[in-house]
Formats: sequence, C-alpha cells, structure tokens
Amino acid sequence: MKSAFQTVALIGKYMNPETREQILTLAGFLAERQVGIFIEEKTAEHSDIKGYTTLKLSAIGAYADLAIVLGGDGTMLTVARALVDYQIPLVGVNRGRFGFLTDINSDHMLESVTQILGGEFQTEQRILLEASIVRDGKVISQGYALNDVVVNKNGLARLIELEIHIDKAFVQKQRSDGLIVATPTGTTAYSLSAGGPILHPTLDAIALVPICPHTLSNRPIAINSASQVEIHIVHAEEASVHLDGQMQMALQPGDRVHVQRAKNTITLLHPPGHNHYDVLREKLHWG
Amino acid sequence: MKSAFQTVALIGKYMNPETREQILTLAGFLAERQVGIFIEEKTAEHSDIKGYTTLKLSAIGAYADLAIVLGGDGTMLTVARALVDYQIPLVGVNRGRFGFLTDINSDHMLESVTQILGGEFQTEQRILLEASIVRDGKVISQGYALNDVVVNKNGLARLIELEIHIDKAFVQKQRSDGLIVATPTGTTAYSLSAGGPILHPTLDAIALVPICPHTLSNRPIAINSASQVEIHIVHAEEASVHLDGQMQMALQPGDRVHVQRAKNTITLLHPPGHNHYDVLREKLHWG
Amino acid sequence: MKSAFQTVALIGKYMNPETREQILTLAGFLAERQVGIFIEEKTAEHSDIKGYTTLKLSAIGAYADLAIVLGGDGTMLTVARALVDYQIPLVGVNRGRFGFLTDINSDHMLESVTQILGGEFQTEQRILLEASIVRDGKVISQGYALNDVVVNKNGLARLIELEIHIDKAFVQKQRSDGLIVATPTGTTAYSLSAGGPILHPTLDAIALVPICPHTLSNRPIAINSASQVEIHIVHAEEASVHLDGQMQMALQPGDRVHVQRAKNTITLLHPPGHNHYDVLREKLHWG
Amino acid sequence: MKSAFQTVALIGKYMNPETREQILTLAGFLAERQVGIFIEEKTAEHSDIKGYTTLKLSAIGAYADLAIVLGGDGTMLTVARALVDYQIPLVGVNRGRFGFLTDINSDHMLESVTQILGGEFQTEQRILLEASIVRDGKVISQGYALNDVVVNKNGLARLIELEIHIDKAFVQKQRSDGLIVATPTGTTAYSLSAGGPILHPTLDAIALVPICPHTLSNRPIAINSASQVEIHIVHAEEASVHLDGQMQMALQPGDRVHVQRAKNTITLLHPPGHNHYDVLREKLHWG
Repeated sequence: MKSAFQTVALIGKYMNPETREQILTLAGFLAERQVGIFIEEKTAEHSDIKGYTTLKLSAIGAYADLAIVLGGDGTMLTVARALVDYQIPLVGVNRGRFGFLTDINSDHMLESVTQILGGEFQTEQRILLEASIVRDGKVISQGYALNDVVVNKNGLARLIELEIHIDKAFVQKQRSDGLIVATPTGTTAYSLSAGGPILHPTLDAIALVPICPHTLSNRPIAINSASQVEIHIVHAEEASVHLDGQMQMALQPGDRVHVQRAKNTITLLHPPGHNHYDVLREKLHWG
Repeated sequence: MKSAFQTVALIGKYMNPETREQILTLAGFLAERQVGIFIEEKTAEHSDIKGYTTLKLSAIGAYADLAIVLGGDGTMLTVARALVDYQIPLVGVNRGRFGFLTDINSDHMLESVTQILGGEFQTEQRILLEASIVRDGKVISQGYALNDVVVNKNGLARLIELEIHIDKAFVQKQRSDGLIVATPTGTTAYSLSAGGPILHPTLDAIALVPICPHTLSNRPIAINSASQVEIHIVHAEEASVHLDGQMQMALQPGDRVHVQRAKNTITLLHPPGHNHYDVLREKLHWG
Repeated sequence: MKSAFQTVALIGKYMNPETREQILTLAGFLAERQVGIFIEEKTAEHSDIKGYTTLKLSAIGAYADLAIVLGGDGTMLTVARALVDYQIPLVGVNRGRFGFLTDINSDHMLESVTQILGGEFQTEQRILLEASIVRDGKVISQGYALNDVVVNKNGLARLIELEIHIDKAFVQKQRSDGLIVATPTGTTAYSLSAGGPILHPTLDAIALVPICPHTLSNRPIAINSASQVEIHIVHAEEASVHLDGQMQMALQPGDRVHVQRAKNTITLLHPPGHNHYDVLREKLHWG
Repeated sequence: MKSAFQTVALIGKYMNPETREQILTLAGFLAERQVGIFIEEKTAEHSDIKGYTTLKLSAIGAYADLAIVLGGDGTMLTVARALVDYQIPLVGVNRGRFGFLTDINSDHMLESVTQILGGEFQTEQRILLEASIVRDGKVISQGYALNDVVVNKNGLARLIELEIHIDKAFVQKQRSDGLIVATPTGTTAYSLSAGGPILHPTLDAIALVPICPHTLSNRPIAINSASQVEIHIVHAEEASVHLDGQMQMALQPGDRVHVQRAKNTITLLHPPGHNHYDVLREKLHWG
C-alpha cells in the first residue's frame, strides 16, 4: 500500500540521545515502506545517527510531507514554533507517560505510524500566538508560542504593574507576579497551575490568566482568539516575556507586548479514536 | 425625528411596585414621541398603572418592536427566556448600581433611550442554553437559561455523583456539590463564585464548572457552544436542575440532563460607547 | 505478654455485612490473647455475628478500654461523636484504600493490632466541634462534629445570607451557598473541595470556609479553636446545618448557629511510625 | 498626666520626605507633654528635620520606650525586623488608606497617640520567622521576616523543584514557581494572592503556600509555628529566597533553607476598640 506521505522527517528530543533506538527503529520501518526519510540535523548529531539525509529543523517544513516528533511536549513546542509557516503536519510520539501534544505512546509507535501512513488519522488545527515587544514605537523582538506568552517579574522584584488593553479598549491595571496569555493548547500547562480554566482546542479563544494578582477579583478571562492584546509594562524593577517557557526577552518599563493569534495554525495528526477528553482524564487523573 | 422602533414594551421587576415612577416617566416620554406603548400585564397590575395597553410577557415578542426592562439582572433573565423565540431586542435599565445585563443607569435613562430610539446603539447577541431532562428515554421537562443550567445536590445530601459526556464522548465521573453549565453571560454570575473563568460574550463557548468537586484536578473547562452536553445522575439522594436560579426541577438517579445552545439568541441593545471590559472593571472592582 | 487493653470493642461499618470476616478474624485473634471482646450491637446484628457480648455504641465508652473501628472515615466520624464524652481511644482499620482517620490497612490489621496491644502506638488528640441552634433565645438542638459543621442553603434556594460573629465581634455578612466550620481533621474533607486550607491536626485552630461566596475576596480564614463562632441566618428560603455530613437540622431565618470546640477531644491510636504528612502525601497524590 | 512612655522614637518611610509634616507635628505634640524624642537617623536626614536627637534604627530598641512608625506596612516590616531583639512596642500611623499593620489613620494620629501615651491601648504579639540558608553544611546567611519567607524561581527559569521537610519528616517534592512560608501577619499579603488562607494573628501557626504548583492537589497547609521547616533546592536554574519581599539572597541547587519561628515576637500597640476582623473587613472589602 502506498503511504499517504512520501517523505517523513524524524525529530528527536533536543540534545538527548535517548531517542536513538526509537529513531533507528522508525527509520528502518519507514525505509521498508519506501518512504523518504530525513533526520533533523541536531537529532542525528546528538544521537550519532548516520546514513540518512539530514535537514535543519527550519528546512523540514519545505522538504518533508510529515514530521514525527519523538520526545515530550517540550520538544513538540519547539518544533511547532519552527514549522508554523509551513503546512507540514506533526505527529508526537512520547516515551514513558504520554503528553498532551505527544499522545502516541512509544509502545504503540509502529502500529500508530502504520495507521497514519495508511491515511487513517484525525486532523487537528492548533492556534499559535505571535508576540511582539514594542519599545519607543518600534518592534524590537518578535516570536511565536504554541502554549503561552508570559509576561512576568523577575526573581528579585516583588511584583509587576501591567496595564492590559484588548482591541484598543482599556481592560485593567494589574499588580501581580505576571500575566499568562495562553492558547487552548497552553491551558493545560502553566496556565492551569496559575488557576486558569481548560479551553478545548477547538475553541477560537485565548485565556488571560493573572499570576498571583493583588486584587482578588482579578480572575482568568477567555476572549476571542481574534482579539489584539496589548500589555503595557507600567512598573517593574525587572521583567521579561517568555514564549512557551523556552525563549525569553528582557522588558523595560514603558515596553508594550502585543499578543495576537498567529496567521497560521499547526496541524497535529492523531491515530483514529483519539479524543481530547480521554487525554484530559488520563493526564489530570480525573476519577 | 422618527423612532427606530414604533412600539415599545415596558417590563418592570416582578411583583415590585418600585419601578412605577420610572415606568410612568418612560411611558410619558415615549408617548410624546408618538411611540406605541405596551405595559407588561403583571407590571401594570403590581405597579397599579392604568391607561395603557397591557400584554402578557409571552405576547410582547409578537407585538412590540423593542422591550425595555426596568429592574435588575434577575428580571432580564426572566424576560430573555420568555422572549427567546422572537427577534425583539432588549434594553435593560437598572435602579441603583447597574448590572451586567441591565447596564443603563436609571439616572441616564431618558438620555440613553433617546439615543436608542434615534438608532444610535450597539447590538449584541447572547446565546442561551436549552436544558432537557430525559427519564426512561423520554423528555419529561425542558427549559431555557440565559445564565446557567445548574445540576446540584439538595441540602440534605452531602454530594452528588455525575457522569459527564460531551458530544457522545465520556468526559468524567464527578463527585461534587453539582455542576454549572454557563453561557458567557452566566460566567459573571454563580459560575464565578464557584471558581469559573470569565468568558467574553462574543465567545462561542460554554463553561462547565464543578461545584466543590471531590477531585482537586477537576477544573473548569470551556468548550465549543455547539457541543452537546449530557449529564447522567449516577447517584444522588436528592438532586435538582436549576435554570438561571429561577426555575427548578427535581431529578432522580438515572435521569439525564441534556444541555445545548438554544437555536435562537437574544439581542441586547446598548447605548453607544458601551464596552464589556468597562462593565467587568466596574462590577468586579478591578483596580 | 499482657495486653495494654483488657477489653476491646469492635465496631463495623453501619449496616454493612462486608466487615464480617474481618471482625471474626479480629475477635478470634483477641480471644486467643485473653482480651475481653464486645461487639457493637448493630454491627453484630447486620453482620450476623453471634456468641459475643454486644453493647450499644453509646455504652462502649463506659465498658471497653479500646475501640477498633472497621470501616471508612465515615464510620469513624459516627463513632467519635458517640464516644466523645469517654476517654476510650479509637483505632481505625480500613478496607481497600486507607482513610485519613482509618489509617490501618486491613492487610496489616493483625500486625498493627499486635503492636497496639503491646503498647507500641502513637497517641493523637483530635478536637471536635459542638454546634447549637438557637431559636428565639433558646437552644433547640445540639450536636458534635469531628469533621465539620456546615450551614448551607437547600437545593431549591440559590443562595443564603449569613452574618458571622466571632467572640462577639462582627466579622462579615456573607452571601454564598453556605459556610463550613471545620476542625483540622475536617480540613481534608469537604472543606478542601470548597477551597479551604489544610490545617495540621496539632493546630489549635478551626477553619471557616465559605462555599461559593458572592464576594470574591471572601476567603478561608483560620482562627483560634477557643473562639466562639456565631452564624446568624439573615435570609434563606431553605437552609440547614449539617454535622459531619451525617446529621442535619432545618434552619429558619433568624436562627443562630453557635459553634465552638467541644470540651473533650477524642484519642486516636496509630501504629508506630505514623506521620500525618505521609497520610497527606498518599491521599492527595502529591508527587 | 504622665505618659506611659518616657521616650518615643519617630520613624518615617524610608527615603520619603512626605512624612515630614506629620513627624514635626508629632514631635511638637510629644515635646509639649515632656516626652523624650528620638528621630530615626535616616528619617531626619531625608525629611530634613533638625534639632532633635537622632538614633540609628538599630539603636532605637535600646534607647526608646516606644516607636511610632509613620509610613505604610512596608515601613513597619523593616522596622519590626530591625527591632525584633528588643522589647520596644511599635505603633503604626498610615497616610491615606490604613494598612494591616499601620492601622492608625493620620487623620486621627494625635487622638490615638494621646490614648496610647495615656496607657489606653491594646497589646498584640506578632511572631516573626527566622530563615537560614545552609550550603555545604554551613549557615551562609540568616535573616528575619514579619510577613513571609519566599523561595522562588527567578524570571528566566520556568519552575523550581523543591523538597519540603517539616520537623525532619519528608512532606513532599514540589514543582512550582516557589513556596511562601508566611506568619499569620503575612497571610494577608503575598500569600493571599497565591491562594493562601487568612490566619488570625493569635494563631500559633505558619502557612506554607505553593506558588503555581504543578500538582493541583498541592494545597496551602497551616502548621504549628513551633515546627522546623526545611526547604531543599533540588533543581533550579536560578532561585532566590526573599524576606518580606525586601531582602533577597541567591540560592543554588543543593542549598537548604531552614525556616522557624524567631525566638522573640514584636509587640504592636493599637488604640482601644481595635479588632482584627474590622481590619480584614475594611481592607478586603467584605460586604
């Protein structure tokens, strides 16, 4: 049977040789099926895998039809941000306990990949956020986030003072440890620890969740994902903005952080029968 | 100038003569402008208002072009449920502190009504929920809610055991005091007290908020408003379902409560310049 | 070796024959050691156990030196309230997963009981609450609680209005679903679901935890256990007071519920090595 | 009438000349009553006050009978930590809205001070915490806190991993933004924003409140104030410990932070009729 995808890129956990066996198994499996294989450059290097064509992460979107990510949710976040400008769908395979994004257990890896190559899969779009730092009227930095954009105080400061505007309307002044702007995907990550609600991935929404707000009525709010969020840094000894907890930029008083839905979504493929509520129930130990 | 609305119905707070003066003022004001006036039947009776055509609440949708509600949010909830099958827009005038739904302060009543009659207003659609109780395979009761459908234990019982399904998928078994299914409108009411998030009214979403859940990871979740929610009463000594906290029906173990978005929305009119974030900031005492 | 306790009463889960085997095993084990045995009257009846002296629950405190409770935390609550006026220590044996109060797993029952009879045990005092309902200046009802005294609305009402006084000082007016007054023991039960803190059992404190309060800054508060708490029922369509979720009394507007620490504590015995933090970690699934 | 205190020290807000008028007024008032006056050295300098004996903050405890603090709660925290080794009682006068610790409004300053000098006052003891950082078995730093000892991640890190021991017993491993150890005094400050309970000042307790914990069942816990808390820094890219949000020290993985009740308490004096519940109700806007 012909594969639904002619070329597949394999991407392992960053600087982590533990996925070597899995990648070799998967590559052998794909080669038997006449599927073209790319190994992400750093993955090949750190896992000491030779004999396959390697590609930089940023090039995978242009050359491969499918990317299989072997690692945890953290790896998937990195890959998703890097490939957001391409149409390439992503599949996540997790070792040990499965993740919210990497929902294929490595024990069932070949079985699930067989289904997906055979065209049996569910497709899911996930939105990303695009954050820009504006200083003195100029965008000085920009980036994407699949989980969340977090503006927070640094360790030495006791709190931060922010002013929040949505779609040009003033919403509130806030004194807190910071503010999380989360996609539905991000609502099961840091946002949840801060008391935020879970948003179903199909919801066209983003959540604004204050971190330890001074005013107790300052509660999480979910708004339309088409909204433009502007966060003014009114006062902060030290503050920074974080994208998916993986990239950060220092902020100064007077800076504005603009957050909006990224133009493109990423596409996750799941094996048939996948249901987000099953993932929630399992990961959150409901009943 | 011709009014944007030829006939206006005036509806006061249920069994409460306090709105008499306001209604008479408003009726006089409308009469001067050649606008046809209906007074809701019970309002006229309890406020001892004579000389105007009266209409049953349920008939107002068919005969009037606009309904002005004088009371609090509770009155608006009743009116909205009664008129959901009609296209008639609603305006809310509040005495004392303004409400989430009745956002025109009675001090500015005539000014705001002048603007609205003159065609200067903002239009906002709010979804309602439709709840049905299914017993032994048959729908035994049905009703609407603008704020929330609440399934809860009665006072004597210590907790209730529910099983929740969304779009035919099993979500969770829950032991708790109950479950709130809230529209975005309802997320600033009871749901907020139970720890639920605020959902912006433009969001096509409903919130499921557990009340004092036994499992601490059982957190509020917002789902697409097109979803079908099914709540099975697994175990309960005494339980009931509440619509907007105003109507209730007793439940038995084995009953299923189906909740879904009502086919029709209601239309709220606001004076120009209205912004939902201003309402939130004011009502929740944000900084 | 002589037993540290000459007579032991065995008390099983109310109206539940499942503990029959355990009780017979334990009775045989005690008989071999020349320990006098009483079986609680209802336990003997419902478990169809014959040939042992039976005692009413209320008489056990006067005649036995130790009570072993076989059941869950619910059973222990009932027994503790019944025996609070006696010095008799209590031991809890749980079937299946262990409880907060019944911390001896039935798998290790004989081993643990051997240790306890041999004088190897830890002693722990737990406070109880005494609640009185005052109507028209007279106490019309009174009772004890090991976990909590809960004043709440009944199912049909939407909320209750309470006025809280502590040691004659006005604390607050509260609109909510109700109020939990919890002992440290009770803080891992219903109170925790309502957002209350965990109080260590050695703390001379009681927690006041509002249930779904209308005012978001109305947060749980822990006060000295010597305090006199007075709850005035200002307004409620239907309300009641619950003791450990097992006994309830109907309330009327105007009623006052007085809550204070009971004069006596109960004594729990634990096998050596028992630590409350281990119980918390296990029961709450802390990492 | 003779003053209950022969010498009074006046301490203003740090580096803030705004209290100059108040201090001069108060000094004149005291001089008329033959009360000896000391002005805290930095206060005199920054407020440009001459003609009075000045004393270093640390010397005030040895020479004055009473210290009047003019500023906000932040100033009181600094003064309390500096004077904890002395028996000198403290009085707090606040400008604008009153604080939790500085509960005399400047509008009633002279009236309240007259009462206090006349011996009409209430006395309240407040516990402090003593925190030590232990590195490689040695105490490398030590300090006091009246509100809280906070161990947290720094801005760049996403989370911190801590291991908590109480009285030598292992309590839990925790992944979070950090941990707050709060005195009853501190439970209305940062701890409250993080979801902690309010502890009444008379309670011999301290609260452990996790900041954004990864595990949702990881809830605030109140323990006996005589307990020894040990926090092991298991993993953290960058972490620090904060005392009252005013002093901080950098931490390294492997460090242990020991927290226990300080040997001495501080004494607050309040005008007659003072009640902590009134303060709570006012500051938290309860009904």
